[in-house]
Amino acid sequence: MKILNIIPIISDIWTDEMQKYVTQDLLPTTEVVSCNIKHGPGSIEGEYDEALAIPEVLSMVKVAERDGFDAVFINCFGEPGVRAARELVRIPVFGGFEPAIFYALGVADRIGIVSVLREVVPLIREVVDRESLQGRISSIRYVDIPVLGLEDIDKMVAALIKESIKAIEEDHVESIVLGCTAMVGVKERVEEGLKAGGYDVVVIEAAQASLMMLETYVRMRLKHSIYTYPAPREKKRTWWGGDAIVDIV
Amino acid sequence: MKILNIIPIISDIWTDEMQKYVTQDLLPTTEVVSCNIKHGPGSIEGEYDEALAIPEVLSMVKVAERDGFDAVFINCFGEPGVRAARELVRIPVFGGFEPAIFYALGVADRIGIVSVLREVVPLIREVVDRESLQGRISSIRYVDIPVLGLEDIDKMVAALIKESIKAIEEDHVESIVLGCTAMVGVKERVEEGLKAGGYDVVVIEAAQASLMMLETYVRMRLKHSIYTYPAPREKKRTWWGGDAIVDIV
Amino acid sequence: MKILNIIPIISDIWTDEMQKYVTQDLLPTTEVVSCNIKHGPGSIEGEYDEALAIPEVLSMVKVAERDGFDAVFINCFGEPGVRAARELVRIPVFGGFEPAIFYALGVADRIGIVSVLREVVPLIREVVDRESLQGRISSIRYVDIPVLGLEDIDKMVAALIKESIKAIEEDHVESIVLGCTAMVGVKERVEEGLKAGGYDVVVIEAAQASLMMLETYVRMRLKHSIYTYPAPREKKRTWWGGDAIVDIV
Amino acid sequence: MKILNIIPIISDIWTDEMQKYVTQDLLPTTEVVSCNIKHGPGSIEGEYDEALAIPEVLSMVKVAERDGFDAVFINCFGEPGVRAARELVRIPVFGGFEPAIFYALGVADRIGIVSVLREVVPLIREVVDRESLQGRISSIRYVDIPVLGLEDIDKMVAALIKESIKAIEEDHVESIVLGCTAMVGVKERVEEGLKAGGYDVVVIEAAQASLMMLETYVRMRLKHSIYTYPAPREKKRTWWGGDAIVDIV
Amino acid sequence: MKILNIIPIISDIWTDEMQKYVTQDLLPTTEVVSCNIKHGPGSIEGEYDEALAIPEVLSMVKVAERDGFDAVFINCFGEPGVRAARELVRIPVFGGFEPAIFYALGVADRIGIVSVLREVVPLIREVVDRESLQGRISSIRYVDIPVLGLEDIDKMVAALIKESIKAIEEDHVESIVLGCTAMVGVKERVEEGLKAGGYDVVVIEAAQASLMMLETYVRMRLKHSIYTYPAPREKKRTWWGGDAIVDIV
Amino acid sequence: MKILNIIPIISDIWTDEMQKYVTQDLLPTTEVVSCNIKHGPGSIEGEYDEALAIPEVLSMVKVAERDGFDAVFINCFGEPGVRAARELVRIPVFGGFEPAIFYALGVADRIGIVSVLREVVPLIREVVDRESLQGRISSIRYVDIPVLGLEDIDKMVAALIKESIKAIEEDHVESIVLGCTAMVGVKERVEEGLKAGGYDVVVIEAAQASLMMLETYVRMRLKHSIYTYPAPREKKRTWWGGDAIVDIV
Repeated sequence: MKILNIIPIISDIWTDEMQKYVTQDLLPTTEVVSCNIKHGPGSIEGEYDEALAIPEVLSMVKVAERDGFDAVFINCFGEPGVRAARELVRIPVFGGFEPAIFYALGVADRIGIVSVLREVVPLIREVVDRESLQGRISSIRYVDIPVLGLEDIDKMVAALIKESIKAIEEDHVESIVLGCTAMVGVKERVEEGLKAGGYDVVVIEAAQASLMMLETYVRMRLKHSIYTYPAPREKKRTWWGGDAIVDIV
Repeated sequence: MKILNIIPIISDIWTDEMQKYVTQDLLPTTEVVSCNIKHGPGSIEGEYDEALAIPEVLSMVKVAERDGFDAVFINCFGEPGVRAARELVRIPVFGGFEPAIFYALGVADRIGIVSVLREVVPLIREVVDRESLQGRISSIRYVDIPVLGLEDIDKMVAALIKESIKAIEEDHVESIVLGCTAMVGVKERVEEGLKAGGYDVVVIEAAQASLMMLETYVRMRLKHSIYTYPAPREKKRTWWGGDAIVDIV
Repeated sequence: MKILNIIPIISDIWTDEMQKYVTQDLLPTTEVVSCNIKHGPGSIEGEYDEALAIPEVLSMVKVAERDGFDAVFINCFGEPGVRAARELVRIPVFGGFEPAIFYALGVADRIGIVSVLREVVPLIREVVDRESLQGRISSIRYVDIPVLGLEDIDKMVAALIKESIKAIEEDHVESIVLGCTAMVGVKERVEEGLKAGGYDVVVIEAAQASLMMLETYVRMRLKHSIYTYPAPREKKRTWWGGDAIVDIV
Repeated sequence: MKILNIIPIISDIWTDEMQKYVTQDLLPTTEVVSCNIKHGPGSIEGEYDEALAIPEVLSMVKVAERDGFDAVFINCFGEPGVRAARELVRIPVFGGFEPAIFYALGVADRIGIVSVLREVVPLIREVVDRESLQGRISSIRYVDIPVLGLEDIDKMVAALIKESIKAIEEDHVESIVLGCTAMVGVKERVEEGLKAGGYDVVVIEAAQASLMMLETYVRMRLKHSIYTYPAPREKKRTWWGGDAIVDIV
Repeated sequence: MKILNIIPIISDIWTDEMQKYVTQDLLPTTEVVSCNIKHGPGSIEGEYDEALAIPEVLSMVKVAERDGFDAVFINCFGEPGVRAARELVRIPVFGGFEPAIFYALGVADRIGIVSVLREVVPLIREVVDRESLQGRISSIRYVDIPVLGLEDIDKMVAALIKESIKAIEEDHVESIVLGCTAMVGVKERVEEGLKAGGYDVVVIEAAQASLMMLETYVRMRLKHSIYTYPAPREKKRTWWGGDAIVDIV
Repeated sequence: MKILNIIPIISDIWTDEMQKYVTQDLLPTTEVVSCNIKHGPGSIEGEYDEALAIPEVLSMVKVAERDGFDAVFINCFGEPGVRAARELVRIPVFGGFEPAIFYALGVADRIGIVSVLREVVPLIREVVDRESLQGRISSIRYVDIPVLGLEDIDKMVAALIKESIKAIEEDHVESIVLGCTAMVGVKERVEEGLKAGGYDVVVIEAAQASLMMLETYVRMRLKHSIYTYPAPREKKRTWWGGDAIVDIV
């Protein structure tokens, strides 16, 4: 099967290492094509950034279905455009929040999220409220490093360990979800760091979880409900620069 | 004071009568300038429509602050772009949901919303969840008329009365909020129709409520919290056709 | 329009400065008449105090409607008698809690209340529960100064700043509501003190908010729902000293 | 032990039969003294009625403690003055709602209340919210008979059976609490009527439950928490006709 | 009346002192017969221990009804087998959690539980969720002493006082429930210790509360609802060693 | 990988067709071994049946880990013993409820469960409460056919379609989960029947979902949290007939 991995920012932060890491557990027959949007924000750290990213993401989602992709991953924990995308197409679409959290629900009763910056906390809290999962998400913390600063892996890992311990000790969480889909390839190091500190805690990486969930949806032939995500009615819609369809490759 | 009333659709449905109606209770010194977006959907009836409307709405919100407007009304019950807009500017911004509901909270314990179509119910439910107001919004119903069909006033009024009675009898609501900001000028007729049927119920019109709330915010010098709505960080952001700033008039 | 401001205690703590402050943003045509009850408690700091205050408050509310007042403010954050008063009259009645909180709902996701004493916390929590707003009121704190000690303004301001910072840091609130309607005229100083400490937070003063909300209700012709606040049936009711109607002036 | 049963209305509806019924399961050593208030409403069917009843109820509660009573029952399902009374004295005080519901919590997961009139529904809902028991109280219905009309026992029983069946069938409740403390002596007939209709449901009578709970509190030396119900501070409080203390007998 | 007190563990920890203590407030006519299970765990500190204890507990519950017992106490705070037992018999059955908590609901708004070990916290949280009482149980703490270590009374009392103070100061609880039915005979000492530290808090002992509640249920002829606890259908069921009925004495 | 599928009843209802159906989407390298318990109930339709099934299920779970199985499915929607099993082993264990619901969370906002009998509704509601998913599970209905009557496939399919339509129309659900793991092989027919009636609804089959989730957990190396599911302490535990370890095959 073919999954489109849309990086909903204009920065070229998605490396081959990240690609390799998040696809490591997929089936050999699963192909993941990654692409960036061309118009939008350099990173997503708030609702304004999301709003700028979404239109081109949606156009890519439509192209993905047209071109035979089986599923789409909108590669961001804040889930920009996910609900709109599900209105547009009949192939599975996931962002970064839902799959990681749904898997975490089976791991622990109390889940903690550790994300990037203070300003994404309201964004994530909004998704938690929208999902009615307040009874399970017991903590939302941040490492205080912007998305484009995450390439300093050692610094990120150290900060993730520090905040995870606070989440465990102060907020009594029992599992950790990494709250940014660019926190790739560090799950094992964070788990080890926690274990060294006496904390045997499962850490879930969001991008990996999303691709796995999409693969499962395709294999099980699951689709999003047309009652929750009704198809848009025919009506006049205009856009900058023609139809604003941006080719994927 | 000057309030910008952004109609976040490309259809020219906002009439002088509607403008006159929703401003009837404002101060004589309050000026309301109305404008449509140029790129986006013909009406908003889902998340896809919202996504297409938001970028130009946000650009207009920025221009409004630059040009000395005191407040901005994003004229849609689904609140497209409201949270993003509050990140961008330090003048009050409201959509159609919050003010009508906040006033309704003082009117009754159990509130019913009557909107346009079945497909907007998930959209409104999402806003209710985001606001943590499930304990007060006891019913979300719809008249089954699309936004662009609301110009048949008699039909709309009859349908609103019918659904309101169901909300009262079956869902035990105690006040009604009209769940589309284009349901303008009918509140009194719906109240009368309900009274004729034996139901003495307060009906709240959303656009009127929003303008009134904005006027109050300006008079009381209230602003949105920078913790809930943090200002976007400086970073690279690109857009179609230059900076995508669309002049308001 | 004419609004009756009922101070539901027998102490004469309502000064001209307070009156001037809370009416500063009202329309020039809005007249606010203030009066104290004659029988009842010296201040309201618990349910017993409330119970003693309510009967005369209700009698004043009835007289207010009879004498042509357009609206009534029961000047206490605990809202003594507000629900009973709404059963009695068809003019708008607000206490101190609802308007401040309803305005705060548009300011921030997480709201903190700072009130007077530990013993009023259960009282305020009860109002929060009754309003089903637990998802938005994230903190109830107190300055540990009784109502009749609030005249030491400097002490009150310092204590409000201290508790507000705790609410922001420990309870993650994003806006502050002053939880006693006698905390008048200090909002600006508290905001400035917080800003000096690095906290840019909107503070809402409750008495001012209530009068503004009442003015809005009158202008918009909004009334309380007869389903939530049904009119008392005719039946025998007796009282001390005749009909217990106490003239307002 | 001695329990004071305060009938918080001026109507003399409490009969010897009712007294005998609600005390039937108490210990032989438990004495229940019943008394009416002298100033207040003829019956309690709303917040206004409650407000008028409470002051004299509170005065009687104080006298009860002074005169050596071990516990006080405020004989009304709406619990008028219960929280204020607990601030005043250190002997147990219960109204009609809590004990019946607390016993019902052990009987069934989903509890239905059947009370007198539509206008008491907001009153009861408010108590449910205050107690944070929305997850267990699944239905609040009414027989549409005022308190002073309950003496037509056959009519009341028939109406209780009818509404209980609706609560079971439509609201899926699994146990019934009679939502007015004057619905005395009918529990068995309602249970039988339901059984005749095929419904094997436990019905709980509120006044009986309260006296039983008070007896238990006394035997177990349980008291209300001074943190939830803090003692009123010393301060000036005035009242009609002297100190408004009304002797009990 | 005769109540069976089932100690659902194979350890012989139930002493005459404990028996005497928990029955001290019962009627002279109430006889409490205590017994241990023969197959199962040495103590209950998790779901696995519960699972091993339940079958023989259920068999004893059936025997109790057959042999004329009026009620059954399953002597464990985690309530092992309580819901299953209520399906089996028509006499009242309580575990240790419900009665203590139901009585505490009348004592305070915010209740704290102090139990034995960290590993029982998920177990207790599960019962709280199942009962929909999250709005009232504000804290679950533990003394870090296993069940079989509780015989060191001084150590237990000191630890209970320490954790109770944390629950009061940090979690703002207003009453304490001892979260293990083997914490018998220490309630008074914990209350005194807290009072010595300046905390006037009601402490509730669970085993005592359960026996009292059962006595009340029998006196009031209350039963568990057959809708919440439906009788098992006839079907084939097999067990080790014959019918696995274990005689009580 | 090897997954053990424990049928937690003594009836031999698991057919080759069912096995084939629920494994159809698994990897070719995934082997599913199915087995029944030898002591316990003929079917699980209440808490008593669960209690009898759990001990041997747990023994089999331990054996599964000892014998190199990678994961265990406890094949029942009520999840008998799932939490206890997770305390015992460090390989993934799922029952029938969680995986189906977690996948459904991505399909729709409002989920409906259709199970077998009225008496399993409290059982399922209890799991929903324990999972804090009341905000997403909007309906629990039943076909009124016992587990051992489900072999009449046509009757089951017709009843499932009928109840699903009621769930959609009356309870506004947007996706259906089959609430018994023996409702195997009918998902497609129910979907088709609903589509024929005008309802385009995703139906999720629970056993299939569980095996898929287990396979994913193994591939992603996810484990249950030791904080939510702490390992049982060493202590004396006795059982009928020796150690009660029952060999799997």
